[in-house]
Amino acid sequence: DAPLTFFLGPCALESREHALFMSNAILEIADKLGAQVVYKTSFDKANRTSMSGYRGLELDEALDIFAEVKDKTGLPMLTDVHLPDQCEKVAKVVDVLQIPAFLCRQTDMLQAAAETGAVVKVKKGQFLAPWDMKNVVNKLISMGAKDVLLTERGSSFGYNALVTDMRGLPEMAAMAPVVIDATHSVQQPGGKGGSTGGQREYVPVIAKAAVAVGVSGVFLETHQDPDNAPSDGPNMVILSELEKLMSELIQINALVKSF
Amino acid sequence: DAPLTFFLGPCALESREHALFMSNAILEIADKLGAQVVYKTSFDKANRTSMSGYRGLELDEALDIFAEVKDKTGLPMLTDVHLPDQCEKVAKVVDVLQIPAFLCRQTDMLQAAAETGAVVKVKKGQFLAPWDMKNVVNKLISMGAKDVLLTERGSSFGYNALVTDMRGLPEMAAMAPVVIDATHSVQQPGGKGGSTGGQREYVPVIAKAAVAVGVSGVFLETHQDPDNAPSDGPNMVILSELEKLMSELIQINALVKSF
Amino acid sequence: DAPLTFFLGPCALESREHALFMSNAILEIADKLGAQVVYKTSFDKANRTSMSGYRGLELDEALDIFAEVKDKTGLPMLTDVHLPDQCEKVAKVVDVLQIPAFLCRQTDMLQAAAETGAVVKVKKGQFLAPWDMKNVVNKLISMGAKDVLLTERGSSFGYNALVTDMRGLPEMAAMAPVVIDATHSVQQPGGKGGSTGGQREYVPVIAKAAVAVGVSGVFLETHQDPDNAPSDGPNMVILSELEKLMSELIQINALVKSF
Amino acid sequence: DAPLTFFLGPCALESREHALFMSNAILEIADKLGAQVVYKTSFDKANRTSMSGYRGLELDEALDIFAEVKDKTGLPMLTDVHLPDQCEKVAKVVDVLQIPAFLCRQTDMLQAAAETGAVVKVKKGQFLAPWDMKNVVNKLISMGAKDVLLTERGSSFGYNALVTDMRGLPEMAAMAPVVIDATHSVQQPGGKGGSTGGQREYVPVIAKAAVAVGVSGVFLETHQDPDNAPSDGPNMVILSELEKLMSELIQINALVKSF
Repeated sequence: DAPLTFFLGPCALESREHALFMSNAILEIADKLGAQVVYKTSFDKANRTSMSGYRGLELDEALDIFAEVKDKTGLPMLTDVHLPDQCEKVAKVVDVLQIPAFLCRQTDMLQAAAETGAVVKVKKGQFLAPWDMKNVVNKLISMGAKDVLLTERGSSFGYNALVTDMRGLPEMAAMAPVVIDATHSVQQPGGKGGSTGGQREYVPVIAKAAVAVGVSGVFLETHQDPDNAPSDGPNMVILSELEKLMSELIQINALVKSF
Repeated sequence: DAPLTFFLGPCALESREHALFMSNAILEIADKLGAQVVYKTSFDKANRTSMSGYRGLELDEALDIFAEVKDKTGLPMLTDVHLPDQCEKVAKVVDVLQIPAFLCRQTDMLQAAAETGAVVKVKKGQFLAPWDMKNVVNKLISMGAKDVLLTERGSSFGYNALVTDMRGLPEMAAMAPVVIDATHSVQQPGGKGGSTGGQREYVPVIAKAAVAVGVSGVFLETHQDPDNAPSDGPNMVILSELEKLMSELIQINALVKSF
Repeated sequence: DAPLTFFLGPCALESREHALFMSNAILEIADKLGAQVVYKTSFDKANRTSMSGYRGLELDEALDIFAEVKDKTGLPMLTDVHLPDQCEKVAKVVDVLQIPAFLCRQTDMLQAAAETGAVVKVKKGQFLAPWDMKNVVNKLISMGAKDVLLTERGSSFGYNALVTDMRGLPEMAAMAPVVIDATHSVQQPGGKGGSTGGQREYVPVIAKAAVAVGVSGVFLETHQDPDNAPSDGPNMVILSELEKLMSELIQINALVKSF
Repeated sequence: DAPLTFFLGPCALESREHALFMSNAILEIADKLGAQVVYKTSFDKANRTSMSGYRGLELDEALDIFAEVKDKTGLPMLTDVHLPDQCEKVAKVVDVLQIPAFLCRQTDMLQAAAETGAVVKVKKGQFLAPWDMKNVVNKLISMGAKDVLLTERGSSFGYNALVTDMRGLPEMAAMAPVVIDATHSVQQPGGKGGSTGGQREYVPVIAKAAVAVGVSGVFLETHQDPDNAPSDGPNMVILSELEKLMSELIQINALVKSF
């Protein structure tokens, strides 16, 4: 009977205007569906495949925009952190600090995030088993983190491919609430040579499967025009298709949590 | 709005008495839930991990029991074939010939099955990609098979482990109706040294996820006392828990097919 | 100080003329290098990706050619078997019966091969761990096989790819002499859609690595014109490059076995 | 005909005394064999599985010891960096900055390392394909790095396991000189629950295979008493066995580079 929490937004913070446009569009859908939403956006893409990839805005500029979005929409905010010394500053504005998958075992990163008192959402590394996240959760708790969220975003499966193992969801749910990241689960890392590919058509597949298994939240990147977005275009959901997908996930969630 | 077809039964044909007991118990649940059921059992376990593993009854003896089960319950029957020359004989009694995953690319096996006119249900090899099954379906159709079913049962994922990729289900559904084999998807091949392990607790996880994605059928092995069954005990569903699981799957199916 | 045994020949038996040409060319190299060689060829490609793939000659016709090659060159012969009832007939001419990787756990196949008294060479399934082959070797020995050879040919690694784990070689060498199949280790199964791709340039990589680790034999498919061969062209070694590769492998073998 | 470069040392910097003991013991072997050696040690284990794992000494304290080791032995020094702001300081003493595998795509990390002018040795992420490293090398060069070394240390292979793909070595050698990390290639990540397991017996297997394929260097962690070492004990080579292994690798290298 617990409702799903949605983590929604474009991959990258493109501009103040775009952030206001996207967050308003998402808020409208959330209100219509009665959905609980956290707005997600990244100020920095710190591990782009190539140097020419878009990296985002400066942190201070980004934080001002985050504050404005939060103020105007009332939505809680989530963003990624990449270095320990960003955490304190970011946590002054942002509600949920997300630890990227590649960094999920960096002790200094976890420590800095835990100490802010913000919610810490850790993405399971593509190189880890679900049960390996027990150590990460334990580290975070011993460091003083109060709210920890875990996120599944696929496991390495040969070269340039990921696979999402549905068994990992209940396995990790025994440690902390689990969010399915349906966007990065369908990434094809390095699959386009100089950038990363993706399979947008499988986002609903992964999301529906995970919700049927029983997760606490769904992370979905969305954009009004993904094919022209500066990053992760191939796997973002088209904004105009978001409401239908969210509505279906809400219905599946209500059904399976009634069992 | 298409109903699910369930393929249910114990892994191995143990005896005439056991087959009648199991098929009646399954028929009763099917009637109660209005579910479409095919009765599944294997007369031979032709690829046991070790020589001391139970292999089943002789083919002729098994076929007599299959005929009796079919006659008494009215359920359609499915069984595995392991050699081309078994197909014709088996198809006289059995409605669905199942090609084991290891044999899914053996041309002679596919040919012999196709020529019987029975439904041919092919399990995707653990070593194949979903799109590789296109060649198998094409082979079968060119050989004269009229009804082909595809089955997902997991892909090799490192040693002694399988992973079930939900993206494969719609990929294969474009070729032929797809059945999720939730029992073998949770196998741990070779995981117990001289025999194969499994994780029964994940059968509902795989089954619910696959039904939420949209499959035509669910294959589940079940037994009144799996821990003492001659094969596949670790991953068979306990008979007393079958009805609840089927009921939940039927509800998820009805919901997602209403979208 | 044990010399390497080479298993050499074209993937498929194309014709009597081609078999005589290839076996003579290989014999000449073997004599020059003082190498121990078994001539390899397949009379049937029983698991081709698609129906239009070349399958080979009839068994009787093939066996006559095998006998002639054996008689004229004095080379021991190896071929694949695909069905239990082929074994007895094939073993009248052929010295080494090779069990294909997909069939390495089929009990009836192993039994029929073991009963011939021929050497049984089993390829490790792409879906098995090295230690899983212990059960296969035990099965064969309990069935009466006297000489068993194991063969490494790669493990499933995501979709349409294999990876060869060098740790598996000493692991399996504790069970039976191990042959590295450098040709199929570099296959890209299904990688070309309707047929299987390969990476000929990596054959020497896999072969040298395996010999440095210490194997008993090297299996290499070769052809005077692989790009126009009816099967496995992408991963066969060009005949004109075979001598140099064999010479290098013999030197590495001599060095590492001197340690 | 190019000699191998060995990167040798204990996993962690334990104490000044231990560092002097180890570096002297290694220098002695290097002199005896005429081997080119870089001394390796880590001042911080920044991604330990659990909080209770040993993390090492403070950076300043560690750098003093590095300087003393370098001064007394004359060996070039290698260490890992974990945060961009460590690079400049570390590069004042250390010759080779090693970027850990999990961090190999962190742009800020690569930038800071490149700007020092030191040799930058990047470990290929367990989640990357060999060809993905092309982007990393290009990033480093465009950032001003003059000497780049690549390191293979295994790819994710299912859960809690790695596999080392020998084909990746020539693939990456086309980009930059390649070092095989035989110690971490045999890790079993998370394989011991609260810490990481390993298979020391396979270090020579991976090292010999890689040298036979043709690499520029070999990275091996070693310890006089690995089973009581604070980290990576299960996969460090016992110091007393190092000379024999190095001698064999030198011989294989000389042979294959003579071809």
